[in-house]
Amino acid sequence: MQKQNRRTFIATATLAGSALVTNASSSMQKKNSIVHHVFFWLKNPSSKEDLEKLKAGLRTLKNIKTVKQLFIGMPASTEKRDVVDNSYHVSELMFFEDLEGQKAYQDDPLHKKFVEDCSHLWEKVVVYDVRNDD
Amino acid sequence: MQKQNRRTFIATATLAGSALVTNASSSMQKKNSIVHHVFFWLKNPSSKEDLEKLKAGLRTLKNIKTVKQLFIGMPASTEKRDVVDNSYHVSELMFFEDLEGQKAYQDDPLHKKFVEDCSHLWEKVVVYDVRNDD
Repeated sequence: MQKQNRRTFIATATLAGSALVTNASSSMQKKNSIVHHVFFWLKNPSSKEDLEKLKAGLRTLKNIKTVKQLFIGMPASTEKRDVVDNSYHVSELMFFEDLEGQKAYQDDPLHKKFVEDCSHLWEKVVVYDVRNDD
Repeated sequence: MQKQNRRTFIATATLAGSALVTNASSSMQKKNSIVHHVFFWLKNPSSKEDLEKLKAGLRTLKNIKTVKQLFIGMPASTEKRDVVDNSYHVSELMFFEDLEGQKAYQDDPLHKKFVEDCSHLWEKVVVYDVRNDD
């Protein structure tokens, strides 16, 4: 092995190992990780202010330690089909490493503050909790 | 800069840059990426064979090029609350980079084969398509 090649090999090997560790999605794919998907229907769907308030409240939740990933979104303009429910207004999608992480989130003061500050904004909420199996 | 330090610096800089590129979750968090979340209710919820057939079918979908992430799961044993719907049997959660990726998935022969092979297994399906906004 030439000196330059050896150096390159070491850099590549280090890179491969570290990329695995720093890739947040690795832990998300672990069996038994938890998906927490919440759909909100606003009381005043025409109020842009209410929408922004809810989204701002949701953003605070990523400061909770056990929340590994947080995605905030709205209905996508995919093809209209009978099976697609696009009647909700805001989607909150979270990943936890395990059931304990989800429980800690429910009990976290930041989560309680979010509910206190924002629950007057929605008229309906539906939650799906999923345990990843693969 | 000493030779060794310079070498280490280059390796670290390369690592930082490449980790960003190889981290699949980075692209998932991009504004306008698409979440496609499907919930299945089986015709025969007591049939372990039907459940395994559906899960095996879902696993084939990760071979579709535009599917950036696929999570297959079942209801998590989180706290029972009125807002939590845990009546479904199987959850399929996918990420696409954009709307075009989701459309290409719908039209992909592998997806069509999955529907052909497995649609007799479910009695109800609900789909949520979300455009990530943050």
